[in-house]
Amino acid sequence: MAELPEALAGQLQALLGPRFSTARGDLDQHAHSESFHRAPAPDAVLFPETAEEIAQILPACAAAGVPVVPWGTGTSLEGHALATQGGVSLDLSRMNRVLEVRAGDMQVDVQPGVTREALNRELRATGLFFPVDPGADASLGGMASTRASGTTAVRYGTMRENVLALEVVLADGRIIQTGTRAAKSSAGYDLTGLFVGSEGTLGVITRLTLRLHGQPEEVAAAVCGFDDLEAAVECVTATIQSGIPMARIEFVDAATARAFNLHSGASLPETPHLMVEFHGSPGAVREDAARFGEIATEFGATGFDWAASPEDRARLWRMRHGAYHAAFALRPGAAGVVTDVCVPMSQLPEAVAAAARDIAEAGMIGPIVGHVGDGNFHSLLLVDPASEAELTAAKAIARRMAERALEVGGTISGEHGIGTGKRGLMAAQHGDAWQVMGAIKAALDPCGILNPGKLVPDRN
Amino acid sequence: MAELPEALAGQLQALLGPRFSTARGDLDQHAHSESFHRAPAPDAVLFPETAEEIAQILPACAAAGVPVVPWGTGTSLEGHALATQGGVSLDLSRMNRVLEVRAGDMQVDVQPGVTREALNRELRATGLFFPVDPGADASLGGMASTRASGTTAVRYGTMRENVLALEVVLADGRIIQTGTRAAKSSAGYDLTGLFVGSEGTLGVITRLTLRLHGQPEEVAAAVCGFDDLEAAVECVTATIQSGIPMARIEFVDAATARAFNLHSGASLPETPHLMVEFHGSPGAVREDAARFGEIATEFGATGFDWAASPEDRARLWRMRHGAYHAAFALRPGAAGVVTDVCVPMSQLPEAVAAAARDIAEAGMIGPIVGHVGDGNFHSLLLVDPASEAELTAAKAIARRMAERALEVGGTISGEHGIGTGKRGLMAAQHGDAWQVMGAIKAALDPCGILNPGKLVPDRN
Repeated sequence: MAELPEALAGQLQALLGPRFSTARGDLDQHAHSESFHRAPAPDAVLFPETAEEIAQILPACAAAGVPVVPWGTGTSLEGHALATQGGVSLDLSRMNRVLEVRAGDMQVDVQPGVTREALNRELRATGLFFPVDPGADASLGGMASTRASGTTAVRYGTMRENVLALEVVLADGRIIQTGTRAAKSSAGYDLTGLFVGSEGTLGVITRLTLRLHGQPEEVAAAVCGFDDLEAAVECVTATIQSGIPMARIEFVDAATARAFNLHSGASLPETPHLMVEFHGSPGAVREDAARFGEIATEFGATGFDWAASPEDRARLWRMRHGAYHAAFALRPGAAGVVTDVCVPMSQLPEAVAAAARDIAEAGMIGPIVGHVGDGNFHSLLLVDPASEAELTAAKAIARRMAERALEVGGTISGEHGIGTGKRGLMAAQHGDAWQVMGAIKAALDPCGILNPGKLVPDRN
Repeated sequence: MAELPEALAGQLQALLGPRFSTARGDLDQHAHSESFHRAPAPDAVLFPETAEEIAQILPACAAAGVPVVPWGTGTSLEGHALATQGGVSLDLSRMNRVLEVRAGDMQVDVQPGVTREALNRELRATGLFFPVDPGADASLGGMASTRASGTTAVRYGTMRENVLALEVVLADGRIIQTGTRAAKSSAGYDLTGLFVGSEGTLGVITRLTLRLHGQPEEVAAAVCGFDDLEAAVECVTATIQSGIPMARIEFVDAATARAFNLHSGASLPETPHLMVEFHGSPGAVREDAARFGEIATEFGATGFDWAASPEDRARLWRMRHGAYHAAFALRPGAAGVVTDVCVPMSQLPEAVAAAARDIAEAGMIGPIVGHVGDGNFHSLLLVDPASEAELTAAKAIARRMAERALEVGGTISGEHGIGTGKRGLMAAQHGDAWQVMGAIKAALDPCGILNPGKLVPDRN
């Protein structure tokens, strides 16, 4: 373990008292997140409670040249929250208050450590909900920082569409407000949009104003099976092109169905499936579900199973969200390399089929799931953690998937972000625009202390 | 008229031939736009045809310290396209090709000089349309640059939501690509979102990838009257809060109804009105229209007039879009000061009522219209162009309206942008965040040649 400069450590301890920690347990807890990425433990963990504290921490660290790495719940998948260059982990979990629900404006102000499930519990009585749903019970600050999305983005958008305004502490300690409470604004650069997805490299988010949505009057969900992967994915493309306002349309392949059977007590045919949900008035839900049923039947869908009760639906989506963990049942003890490409809708069938071919040809176990209504899909390549060869092979498959996505105008990351894991692909995706990101980073964080080594190019 | 440095003029003439113009007619045509803002004519007008030409023009101008002011159709309302500090007007009207329609992806690539009406004519046979509709037949590059919206934003979003990717020429001549053709991406800073709304201060947009939408199966539109302004606006708030997916919900006040009667051959009762439109399946449109009818009736709506045919609807919206010009019928020969605040939905009734009170107390003619489903409304304060006192009084009312919007968490501009007209209010809205915009500007345009004097603070 490196050590913080003594003067800085003293300054932080004076500011935070026992919320400045170098206890082994705290350091270790902030040394890994939910993926194969590993990093040394941070030199200290800070647990700030206010923006004003953070506004003192950042300039102090900048003066000492010490990295600051924001931490939400540690559920990110690309190593975003790891202190790869040492420094302090800025754990925002104590900033976990829902500050103000403005039901009439369908908005809420939250601190960054509030998780999406905690927020929705708090909203239950209002008739409103926050839709963005990446599966993990992530913090809303973390979700904004990675521009998270998930199963409902096809209907409600990603964090890009659902964050209206932010309070952000800059590296120099200024506390700024971005955005407004109005539904739209043409008053200058979209700084809210710039901080959303910036992965803690431009500032620390200390408050978020989020858009809420009315709980749908009627909800219907179903799962149905297909003979093969192509039929299932082509059904998705046809459904989206038909304009049916799907609330969710999720693909799971045959291997994932098997994982659900092994791990989640399901009894699905071990073939590809779609899981769908409809939101709206009773009439609209009936109409939409019927139109989807017609399209799916054209593509040979069978075994339609409607989740009628809220409990059945909760069970269905819990199973879907558990796909990541369930997949390990296919190879107990394995480590996982997750991919996250997103392609234009017309390119989706070929992109998924090509990924499946690559995985099969490599003899690898790599179940595929996807938020396919957005053209986004993941494979979880299961490798022996002791085998460098397998890890290398998995990374080669992941890289090929990303290259194929770029060839058809897609993106290397639909929702997981860049962190350290995808940084090697940024130049391929963005060309000179990656250097522009670096220039913006340098303008806002001239000392380079905010989550260094992530997302942007290294400083020349 | 200032003159360009001789070497630069020669360089540009060699590059562009007759598309480099210092003809009086060209200069004068680029010296004013659709508002009271005036500026000297530019020193030259350039008519580039390719991004590569622009990539030569910008570094040449940067080396000579000569401002470059992009020009679309000249329909902006805050002086964005005026060469207030001299330099060249970069007229993009020759870059007016629809490059590729990808119907299966519901996307189109266009050059920046394509206007929204031209695009929609080209799309007619595809079953798709581009929804953003600011009224004027503006260029899509200009609409992106001011983050334009208009009557349909309540349903389809603004340019922020409908621009997927851009090609941009930077001040140093690099041509970058931002965004992708995928529906979403978490791969780094949202540069597309940064350039949208940046008013030509960060780069010149040379290609746009736009999201398209399916032409609705069924459309219904109506106009209805209310006893007073409060009832009409409270009806809007109740409608939006009820979750009815309005395709349009527009407010016009009694003075505007009178202007329509005088100028557009309407025969409306001279009271406040709402104009609404519903898009969807036949069943959904029926349901939505019925629910809106119930709410409107609660607020005392009368004289429901349904525009059944496409021609009737076209007439209705042509009338609404003509409000700006029709208003001058209330005071022939007047000049207009346009306001553009946007407030949270719950604050809309009081914001509109307060604006109406201020206008009445000043004894001014100032009709109010609004894209009220977003909380956005405009007044057009009609002043004697020869009277400094009237202009001063109008500006004071506009300023008070903006201050009131800021007091309730709103914005000084919902859709028109900042240009020179609203720049004096930026510090009040953004505080230190305005300086952050300036830092980004300095990072991307270090010589400060791109549309100087607009949007961002002056360089220290």
